[in-house]
Amino acid sequence: MREFELVTTLGQRLAARRPDTRLGIGDDGALVAPRPGWELAITTDTLIAGRHFPDDTPAVDIGYKTIAVNLSDLAAMGAEPAWLTLSLSAPKLDASWCDALIDGAQAAIGGQAIDIIGGDTTGSDQLMLSVTAIGQAPAGQALRRSAACPGDLIAVTGSLGDAAAGLAFWPQRATAARATQYLIDRLRRPTVRQGAALRGHVHAAIDLSDGLLADIEHICQASGVGATLELDRLPCSEALAEHVPPQSRARRRLQATGGDDYELCVTLNRRSLAAAEAALECPLTVIGRIDAAPGRRLLDAAGQPIAFADLDAPAGWDHFAGD
Amino acid sequence: MREFELVTTLGQRLAARRPDTRLGIGDDGALVAPRPGWELAITTDTLIAGRHFPDDTPAVDIGYKTIAVNLSDLAAMGAEPAWLTLSLSAPKLDASWCDALIDGAQAAIGGQAIDIIGGDTTGSDQLMLSVTAIGQAPAGQALRRSAACPGDLIAVTGSLGDAAAGLAFWPQRATAARATQYLIDRLRRPTVRQGAALRGHVHAAIDLSDGLLADIEHICQASGVGATLELDRLPCSEALAEHVPPQSRARRRLQATGGDDYELCVTLNRRSLAAAEAALECPLTVIGRIDAAPGRRLLDAAGQPIAFADLDAPAGWDHFAGD
Repeated sequence: MREFELVTTLGQRLAARRPDTRLGIGDDGALVAPRPGWELAITTDTLIAGRHFPDDTPAVDIGYKTIAVNLSDLAAMGAEPAWLTLSLSAPKLDASWCDALIDGAQAAIGGQAIDIIGGDTTGSDQLMLSVTAIGQAPAGQALRRSAACPGDLIAVTGSLGDAAAGLAFWPQRATAARATQYLIDRLRRPTVRQGAALRGHVHAAIDLSDGLLADIEHICQASGVGATLELDRLPCSEALAEHVPPQSRARRRLQATGGDDYELCVTLNRRSLAAAEAALECPLTVIGRIDAAPGRRLLDAAGQPIAFADLDAPAGWDHFAGD
Repeated sequence: MREFELVTTLGQRLAARRPDTRLGIGDDGALVAPRPGWELAITTDTLIAGRHFPDDTPAVDIGYKTIAVNLSDLAAMGAEPAWLTLSLSAPKLDASWCDALIDGAQAAIGGQAIDIIGGDTTGSDQLMLSVTAIGQAPAGQALRRSAACPGDLIAVTGSLGDAAAGLAFWPQRATAARATQYLIDRLRRPTVRQGAALRGHVHAAIDLSDGLLADIEHICQASGVGATLELDRLPCSEALAEHVPPQSRARRRLQATGGDDYELCVTLNRRSLAAAEAALECPLTVIGRIDAAPGRRLLDAAGQPIAFADLDAPAGWDHFAGD
């Protein structure tokens, strides 16, 4: 399929729906009208086959995840998603593959009023997708990594470690039992949290893409604080609990260092916890606190220190660290 | 170099300068404050080694061109460039290579107040860069491909065909004579025109990336019109004239179908021509007119028709068309 045809075909499926999208796909650029008095949050993430998802991932799941990880970044900013661009590079593109990709992208968008307003398709040796997502938040109210205060609670949405376990089970996905399938689905189709609902309730926020220990470090660095994490309080799905016992090294390792969960990690006052949870319509689990002293301290259920070396894994997912 | 280090290093070089950039690189997303009453123009372009630039292109030229082609899209929208994101995927990244890339990006930005506000770096088999560029124009005043009217003149900035000739001479670049070097430089470092200056003076606009015949077809399709082009009036640089004689098939072919010039092609009233040229601070050459009847008609210096087949080249650069 030729580039122009492909863009046209995709463009027909991607007609703009938002009234503030003045011009969608088809010109040198799109035109949008930002909401007066609001700021824009802008984020970009690239996903590459074999690195960010297994080579044999179906197109529909690739489409879903590429959009979801970008919407998750907007959620971590407390922004309301509005516009996306999607650049696709691949060795070979056919219409049915692209249709499945867009099916997945639209599944990630769900009922939200989000327009795909541009992008391009290019031939390449390797399948790569690059998305820019643009959201909006009232001026000065977006959530930042730098807003954590000593004394804040640290809380996370949903459950941790599922996606890392799902990746381990990926080769068995055709015959996986239900609990295992759940973990694989968490990897393939992460749930994007509604971070915009957290504005006004939390201080700092980040989404958990690299793994909790790596991502909390980003908050600590940006805020000039430290953190104490109670690793045995990390929220665990029933499916993951079937595979790894409580307080085991395997569970701590998956939950503290496994990436790709795309849950939100926030810091907040204790008195804001109930309101934050209600606004989010999702459980928030307190897993630690922000300290004035720099550094990350890890505790077990008895309040005893856990050494980083005991987790025996890189402190985060690093795309140049030997994978 | 690890991803986090690399992003940090680049981030230090890319500190935000615009007062309306509220938060630059380093969080889940950037925050910007759009100009009240203006719309945003948003465009994305991906460049891939071996496809959009020769594999042996120096990093500084890759950085320049990647930014320039995106700024050219904003120019074609009549938008004032403000923000960029840059995603970089490569087999191997070292600090000096990245520094050179950013040197080139900053050369393309020049003295303009444009902030690079985000991006990512990822390992991949092939060098790829994806940029999203965001500009601003007063509401309703951006330039669109769909605004051409029958009777409009068609005009182009600068000169055409240089970049295509430069690509042909690329293997000889080390020993190229001055005129040839000029053509190669036009390929490596296209000049981005100041399209924002054309607002109010022209109707439709597009930038010439795919080649004149392909790009004028985009205007015709979007506007529901046709075009007559006088191929022997296409502006020719002195350097190109040294290699291809006037009215030759080689010159017509290079100028009408060669891509990558990144000149602007506009349609406008004859009475607006002088003002448009003055605003742009760049020569505008009239090369044809917009017709009510659909289709593209090509004429020689004597006003005789030229057949498309005589140009003996694909009608534009198509990244899936067998390259």
